[in-house]
Amino acid sequence: MQAINASIGFDRKMWRQDIEGSLAHAAMLAHVGIISAEDEAAIRRGMAEIAQRIEAGGMEWDERLEDIHTHVEAALVALIGDAGKRLHTGRSRNDQVALDVRLWVRDAIDGLSGQITDVMRALVARAEEHAGTVMPGFTHLQPAQPVTFGHHMLAYVEMLSRDLSRFRDARARLNECPLGAAALAGTGFPVDRHMTAKALGFDGPTRNSLDSVASRDFAAEFLFACAMCATHLSRFAEEIVIWTNPYFGFVKLSDAFTTGSSIMPQKRNPDAAELVRGKTGRIFGALMGLLTVQKGLALTYFKDMQEDKEGIFDAAESLTLNLAAIAGMVRDMQPDAARLEAAAGAGFSTATDLADWLVRELKMPFRDAHHVTGRLVQKAEAKGCDLAGLSLAEMQAEEARITDAIYGVLTVQASVASRTSFGGTAPENVRRAAAEWREKLG
Amino acid sequence: MQAINASIGFDRKMWRQDIEGSLAHAAMLAHVGIISAEDEAAIRRGMAEIAQRIEAGGMEWDERLEDIHTHVEAALVALIGDAGKRLHTGRSRNDQVALDVRLWVRDAIDGLSGQITDVMRALVARAEEHAGTVMPGFTHLQPAQPVTFGHHMLAYVEMLSRDLSRFRDARARLNECPLGAAALAGTGFPVDRHMTAKALGFDGPTRNSLDSVASRDFAAEFLFACAMCATHLSRFAEEIVIWTNPYFGFVKLSDAFTTGSSIMPQKRNPDAAELVRGKTGRIFGALMGLLTVQKGLALTYFKDMQEDKEGIFDAAESLTLNLAAIAGMVRDMQPDAARLEAAAGAGFSTATDLADWLVRELKMPFRDAHHVTGRLVQKAEAKGCDLAGLSLAEMQAEEARITDAIYGVLTVQASVASRTSFGGTAPENVRRAAAEWREKLG
Amino acid sequence: MQAINASIGFDRKMWRQDIEGSLAHAAMLAHVGIISAEDEAAIRRGMAEIAQRIEAGGMEWDERLEDIHTHVEAALVALIGDAGKRLHTGRSRNDQVALDVRLWVRDAIDGLSGQITDVMRALVARAEEHAGTVMPGFTHLQPAQPVTFGHHMLAYVEMLSRDLSRFRDARARLNECPLGAAALAGTGFPVDRHMTAKALGFDGPTRNSLDSVASRDFAAEFLFACAMCATHLSRFAEEIVIWTNPYFGFVKLSDAFTTGSSIMPQKRNPDAAELVRGKTGRIFGALMGLLTVQKGLALTYFKDMQEDKEGIFDAAESLTLNLAAIAGMVRDMQPDAARLEAAAGAGFSTATDLADWLVRELKMPFRDAHHVTGRLVQKAEAKGCDLAGLSLAEMQAEEARITDAIYGVLTVQASVASRTSFGGTAPENVRRAAAEWREKLG
Amino acid sequence: MQAINASIGFDRKMWRQDIEGSLAHAAMLAHVGIISAEDEAAIRRGMAEIAQRIEAGGMEWDERLEDIHTHVEAALVALIGDAGKRLHTGRSRNDQVALDVRLWVRDAIDGLSGQITDVMRALVARAEEHAGTVMPGFTHLQPAQPVTFGHHMLAYVEMLSRDLSRFRDARARLNECPLGAAALAGTGFPVDRHMTAKALGFDGPTRNSLDSVASRDFAAEFLFACAMCATHLSRFAEEIVIWTNPYFGFVKLSDAFTTGSSIMPQKRNPDAAELVRGKTGRIFGALMGLLTVQKGLALTYFKDMQEDKEGIFDAAESLTLNLAAIAGMVRDMQPDAARLEAAAGAGFSTATDLADWLVRELKMPFRDAHHVTGRLVQKAEAKGCDLAGLSLAEMQAEEARITDAIYGVLTVQASVASRTSFGGTAPENVRRAAAEWREKLG
Repeated sequence: MQAINASIGFDRKMWRQDIEGSLAHAAMLAHVGIISAEDEAAIRRGMAEIAQRIEAGGMEWDERLEDIHTHVEAALVALIGDAGKRLHTGRSRNDQVALDVRLWVRDAIDGLSGQITDVMRALVARAEEHAGTVMPGFTHLQPAQPVTFGHHMLAYVEMLSRDLSRFRDARARLNECPLGAAALAGTGFPVDRHMTAKALGFDGPTRNSLDSVASRDFAAEFLFACAMCATHLSRFAEEIVIWTNPYFGFVKLSDAFTTGSSIMPQKRNPDAAELVRGKTGRIFGALMGLLTVQKGLALTYFKDMQEDKEGIFDAAESLTLNLAAIAGMVRDMQPDAARLEAAAGAGFSTATDLADWLVRELKMPFRDAHHVTGRLVQKAEAKGCDLAGLSLAEMQAEEARITDAIYGVLTVQASVASRTSFGGTAPENVRRAAAEWREKLG
Repeated sequence: MQAINASIGFDRKMWRQDIEGSLAHAAMLAHVGIISAEDEAAIRRGMAEIAQRIEAGGMEWDERLEDIHTHVEAALVALIGDAGKRLHTGRSRNDQVALDVRLWVRDAIDGLSGQITDVMRALVARAEEHAGTVMPGFTHLQPAQPVTFGHHMLAYVEMLSRDLSRFRDARARLNECPLGAAALAGTGFPVDRHMTAKALGFDGPTRNSLDSVASRDFAAEFLFACAMCATHLSRFAEEIVIWTNPYFGFVKLSDAFTTGSSIMPQKRNPDAAELVRGKTGRIFGALMGLLTVQKGLALTYFKDMQEDKEGIFDAAESLTLNLAAIAGMVRDMQPDAARLEAAAGAGFSTATDLADWLVRELKMPFRDAHHVTGRLVQKAEAKGCDLAGLSLAEMQAEEARITDAIYGVLTVQASVASRTSFGGTAPENVRRAAAEWREKLG
Repeated sequence: MQAINASIGFDRKMWRQDIEGSLAHAAMLAHVGIISAEDEAAIRRGMAEIAQRIEAGGMEWDERLEDIHTHVEAALVALIGDAGKRLHTGRSRNDQVALDVRLWVRDAIDGLSGQITDVMRALVARAEEHAGTVMPGFTHLQPAQPVTFGHHMLAYVEMLSRDLSRFRDARARLNECPLGAAALAGTGFPVDRHMTAKALGFDGPTRNSLDSVASRDFAAEFLFACAMCATHLSRFAEEIVIWTNPYFGFVKLSDAFTTGSSIMPQKRNPDAAELVRGKTGRIFGALMGLLTVQKGLALTYFKDMQEDKEGIFDAAESLTLNLAAIAGMVRDMQPDAARLEAAAGAGFSTATDLADWLVRELKMPFRDAHHVTGRLVQKAEAKGCDLAGLSLAEMQAEEARITDAIYGVLTVQASVASRTSFGGTAPENVRRAAAEWREKLG
Repeated sequence: MQAINASIGFDRKMWRQDIEGSLAHAAMLAHVGIISAEDEAAIRRGMAEIAQRIEAGGMEWDERLEDIHTHVEAALVALIGDAGKRLHTGRSRNDQVALDVRLWVRDAIDGLSGQITDVMRALVARAEEHAGTVMPGFTHLQPAQPVTFGHHMLAYVEMLSRDLSRFRDARARLNECPLGAAALAGTGFPVDRHMTAKALGFDGPTRNSLDSVASRDFAAEFLFACAMCATHLSRFAEEIVIWTNPYFGFVKLSDAFTTGSSIMPQKRNPDAAELVRGKTGRIFGALMGLLTVQKGLALTYFKDMQEDKEGIFDAAESLTLNLAAIAGMVRDMQPDAARLEAAAGAGFSTATDLADWLVRELKMPFRDAHHVTGRLVQKAEAKGCDLAGLSLAEMQAEEARITDAIYGVLTVQASVASRTSFGGTAPENVRRAAAEWREKLG
């Protein structure tokens, strides 16, 4: 029973949050006169000593004392006596643990948000550097149209900015203080929940005591935000794995992010990227786990909810590692511009530009322009050249109105330069967007 | 191949969104001069006829035409000729489908938000009605302290208000228009993406064309919001199942929400509640499914992403059913006030009130007060009475300073009335909170 | 990079398996003459010392040495020099880790299977003890028909026996030895893979080297077997939570499996059962995580697969705790036979028996018998009695052919005794089935 | 309520199973004398007519009749009167639906097993055809060592053979007949459950009536087997997507399995492979969904369990599509042998062979041989040649004992030919293994 019941093995990660919450509670109890100023001073003193002891590794963790709350309170009573026994007035372990987990998640969001911003900054820097570097744009992993490397980097900036805003929304939503909900019904002591809420940086107290001790949607939402961000990182990681494959050879990573063997020095295994991709699984698992825990649970507190912690600890740690690895790889990777440009031009990649020219200049209906283009591509394929390799006569055999202005749209540089629609891949667009992001991210 | 590839079997659910998007696109093309005003008028006319035809069930769906976009365009060209062939100028199926899904999800969010608000209103009404109805508050499914039925209802209002705000946040985040991202690189046509965005009710166009056609995080976020809301409903459903069990007998449901058999008329199976609880599983599954689809997918579009639709359709439909069922049950259920009150008083449920009295009146440290209370409860248990059944002398034998004022805190009515801390269960709190919600919900 | 890459923090759990595998490999290398007998003896000696060191806690774990394989090999070379450098001949870290994980999972299956058998034995013992103890059988958590407590216990024996056979099947399927697949292509050294396979207790070597290093379906299958077993335990746990609720009062648990507070001694929180139920979530999560890791992974080895271990370690440990807790609770719980019998008789629970009598004795079609029974139940309900409380005249008013033999089928004892169909709840059935299980389980 | 409760919209898929079960039940009822031979004949006649009607699309489905069981019974009573009302004697909807789902899953397993076998046969055929076709073997998507295309095909045969055996095990485990468990307690009618079990192809009747109506682990196990098989197919699909990328160019797919556009004829989107990969998500989701439904459900039947059906229907259909698509692609794809061989020789892919030669011929310890090889590779890299491009003198400068026999192990053909360890990639191994599989698969 002790083995299954004790949570001290993992919930001691929340010791800072536990002490922080208790100090705010004690200050409030003293303020409203439930405990004396002397008691509060003693609690403050005792807690400082306990914090030092834990920090220094001098706390003895004991499964019989079950959880972090009991450890801290027992240590406090041992240090300061009766004042310590008064600390728990007007609260319960149910609102205390709800508070600690919220504080922990809030701290985790702040840390992860900083990391996401860091990755975004790194991507923006590479985007500015490579605003004009042409590369193939893919659909179905088949080269489709030329784009720029910078544009590709900014695609991830967009994804991460939404991840960031999801974390921000989650933080705002959870930022209500459950302390004072007590066991489940609230308390008859004249506690000032607004005061503790404010002291702990919350927007205010929660509005319903039953909900306060029974709900963990904030933790599941945190896990979803982690899962979504991890998914985006897994897409970048997949691209790193593909791009560093020698047949692609789009980017090179230094030894800091690859492993090899003495025997095959040219074999650079993108281990870091693979781990980023792989760790997505455990974060999905943590989300599914916590949803499962909460499904069909009557109100209010059940011990099932103790299962909220390890999942959020692990997901936060995994995402921290993933973000650090991605930030490093974004800064480290060396795109091979010549190879990217050559790849961008292969495979009739400017066929769309030709079709668009027919629509724009000859007022051909879009669907008809497509058919003409298709025939020209077939002709070039048969001839073994690219589209610019067809003579004007050959082109005019398909569509008499074609002029030699057509050759102006058939280069990859012209192609990307033409995509000036808002959000399009034109280098000037990329530079403008990157500059805006740089400004925004500070 | 056709069997696995065709999506018309399910994506025709988006026909309204597809036509709506095309009309906005055509209006913009005419406005910037890419097509003529006559073409736009023809497109508008043709689309109106197609909409009517689909509405009337007169559209023939054909797997060979693969998807809704092709069906609508083919029908348009058949109706209006060349003008129809011009419609696709400056867009691609990739941005078109991204748009349609976004519009569909946005509509679904609006519908579900209305339903959630309806459930909240129903809960608030029951909370006002039963602000003073006492019932047992549970932890671990063990009666712990008296609370009020209204307070319990408002706990769900809080959960649902967070669900609502999650949907609201998801809506705000997705409310950018991908139209004009074209295949993946943007377009060289002088399209006005801000115009189409505005016409379709978006806050603006998306900022990166690759991201626009490659990302479905908005759909996964929608599914998470559904999953979390479904989880909250599953908790209510679980309580309905438990409360309608005859040993509880807390509430009665009418025949509208139960099934029985002619043979056991007193057996009222809470089928609707069970289905609400059960359907949570498929919504979790849809979320897990869509996260899995996106994990490790390189940019930009892959056919894998066609798998986004059926999950969101099914989850939205399931949640719609669940919300309707819960709204109905909230309004239908008849709490048995007498039974609830009797249950609330059983099991020394006011022991905490006694301990709090000792702390408040005798300045006993909280932990010591707990020990005294524990001994009094044991004494009462031994005597076979409740706490109020102990004589003052019996109480004073444990703690001499106890006065007969103690009896004032030992009734369930006194207990709930005393929990006046913000968010506590006191009837006056419940009335105030319910009134505030009523106002807010309009 | 080191932080994300190193696995020594968790894969050292497999040190026994790693050494076991290396010893078998060394013996084989010596047997076929790839290394000398002296080298093998040195390896054996060195490994014994390393095992002792690890057992005694004297191994220094160092993130720079990345994983358990490197730690053991480095320690071996330090101890015995060149012979240690020869150990890795004809194998690679890829087949080595595949082997270690298989051995670990196989050991875990053996341990869990023993525990499942123990729970089954405990259930069978309670079934024999309570073969005749009547209780309500539920559908929809509504009492439906009387059953026996022993029959209910045996329902879980059936579920667990299937769980056991799933573990058995998983074990048989994984019981092939990947050692000798080397990096991915097999090896040119004349290794004897059948010999190592046999030495390690496998049925034989794996048949394809690429598959051997690329596949982890055995680990996912293990996790599914864990998830399914955990699901069954969660159902038992849910019943414990419900049955110990005071309105049910079906069973009592001792303090060994509940927690309470000094202040509410009658409140026995079934914490152990709640944790069993809650831990189901993390096991689902581990399964979903590992499926996600493997989805869409090209052949052969990727570092993503390093993510297989923590999930299986955690799931195995969680299920171990859950099985131990359930075994304890099965043995500990005290059914309240009087209360169970009273509950079993309430609510016209023998209405089906009456209907069956009408079919059997009066040859009434089943559907018609149901209608007559329905009317009799309504009559009893109106009169405020149970079915046996209706006079024969009152019965005959509905159906003239009813005789007073009918009263013989209306008691709960008669009801359960009559359910003698194979697998039915009749006490004699339960006794027979329990005896058979007892014999089978040894 | 009707909208959420009715299952006829999907459970009518089980109409064959429902009728099949009823016919076996009726035959048994007649055999033991519960109904007359005339009644049974009438039932048989009626059911034949109903089956015909459904087959011909002439059944009217009506949500008010809720489910398939009620539809069939109502139609039967309408056709044959009283005999129809007798059919339900000794059974209940609870055991009837448990039976129908089991029969449906068993049929699905049989169909999917046939399809898996078909894919295996196709893979084996390609393996025999390409037993000697050399290609790069990958780890981390980096070329590592040469392997053969046939060996790669057989890796999937191994995976699928385990999937097949998982389905076989699942089938054996579920092959017990729940009919006769009745509502939950068994029945007092003298039914012969062994007779119905045998008639329906089951190994015997289930052993506990409560378990029979409460358990759906067989359905979850089926979904896991589907999920695992889908995972394996998703790996193959991923490889198809990568291999058809033009920088790889390993295989070509015909138009039957790709889509393109008139405008870019060389762009062959491997849509079928992408859909196979994408559909994995919904199968994971179905598994997660059904586990969630069962978690924490008390005994016995709850309406939650109605949620078992749509998930298994959808997963079975998705996997059917995926298997058909993979079978088609295996047969369709054209490996580019020249390109594969050239790729296999790039990147010092025979460095391991060199190291192994040093160990084998010079008795160098494995780790030392690795270091020497590493230095030779660096030398070749510096010189811009492959290993065979180093002169003997250059080699001997690193290790004097090297002889020109070394050049014999440096070709890709020699490399693969040397991997003759059991399960290794040597063409003779591949031919032998393929022949064995061909024989086994018939």
